[in-house]
Amino acid sequence: MPFVRVSYLEQAYSDQQLKAASEAIMAALTVHFNVPEDDYFQVFHAHRKSEFNYSRNYLNVERSDGLLYIQITLKSGRSTEQKKSFYRLLAEKLSAALPMRREDVFVVLVDTEFEDWSFGNGIAQMLNQPEAQAEALG
Amino acid sequence: MPFVRVSYLEQAYSDQQLKAASEAIMAALTVHFNVPEDDYFQVFHAHRKSEFNYSRNYLNVERSDGLLYIQITLKSGRSTEQKKSFYRLLAEKLSAALPMRREDVFVVLVDTEFEDWSFGNGIAQMLNQPEAQAEALG
Amino acid sequence: MPFVRVSYLEQAYSDQQLKAASEAIMAALTVHFNVPEDDYFQVFHAHRKSEFNYSRNYLNVERSDGLLYIQITLKSGRSTEQKKSFYRLLAEKLSAALPMRREDVFVVLVDTEFEDWSFGNGIAQMLNQPEAQAEALG
Repeated sequence: MPFVRVSYLEQAYSDQQLKAASEAIMAALTVHFNVPEDDYFQVFHAHRKSEFNYSRNYLNVERSDGLLYIQITLKSGRSTEQKKSFYRLLAEKLSAALPMRREDVFVVLVDTEFEDWSFGNGIAQMLNQPEAQAEALG
Repeated sequence: MPFVRVSYLEQAYSDQQLKAASEAIMAALTVHFNVPEDDYFQVFHAHRKSEFNYSRNYLNVERSDGLLYIQITLKSGRSTEQKKSFYRLLAEKLSAALPMRREDVFVVLVDTEFEDWSFGNGIAQMLNQPEAQAEALG
Repeated sequence: MPFVRVSYLEQAYSDQQLKAASEAIMAALTVHFNVPEDDYFQVFHAHRKSEFNYSRNYLNVERSDGLLYIQITLKSGRSTEQKKSFYRLLAEKLSAALPMRREDVFVVLVDTEFEDWSFGNGIAQMLNQPEAQAEALG
């Protein structure tokens, strides 16, 4: 159920690297947020230099033009521990797969509820699942 | 009050079809969320193939490159029944108007409050409306 | 901690004006939301004419193609008074700096919590701050 929106500086990454980033994000969602492997919905936005701004050292993290802004809209209810584990694994997987700098993995999560999603056909599919199943589906 | 952000695969739809999509989304908002016809705020993002990812069959919905990711930020408080009716009508209207496949209508809603909006001039206009009127305005 | 996403009509503003917009948004966040000056995370999206829709007069605000959609994801807890002051100052600063019309400053805020943010390195930095410090950091 997560919907992932990633912003990056144009030409910072090749198409092959975008694919690796997409797979790494999906893998981390699967491990720590119980997201099914085929619950895969992501878009990437390229930005020109004048459209892409970031702090080079806020909170003592040294960021570069390789920064990825990863905004994830998802079902509420993941625990703080799950989120911490997710951030850690996501940075590990992205840095290994692209490769990229772990400092450049910026994440923000936005909560929603089951009733806020339609996966096609004009239906709120999550409301038709038994609650337990829906929880597991993430 | 809704703010609509739509992502689509570049060249999947013509400008005329984007216009039809925009009108169909507005019409569905008007019918089921009580949004005034001139409460019209929408942006569309085109994505390159390598920037646009989706599951081809999650939850047994057969999606294609015609997928529209429709993310709507709106005032909290719509009922589950309203949301279900909205998804149904939105898929119907989009499929008829563009035309497009109903399977390709993906929607996610994000809740906010009246105080979270300024419609221009540096004013939080919804806080200046009588509550009942503001509710009706959506 | 705010993450700022701005949508504008392509060629409505020069790169120099985008820079001024970016600085004006940051300044208003600093003054009214207690955001540190180096807590600076913003992306801008240019849209083609057919991708950029708005009401020309909803709520009696006369908007133009210079409209900026400013969507800000931030920590919950700012008061209504803070938000009102923020909108006012933001419109003032933007209109003076670019310059641009105050009518064209559209803002929507989306709430999140401390645990929803990682600023790099796979860490949820806000959870490692003393609460008071984190609050001040915004």
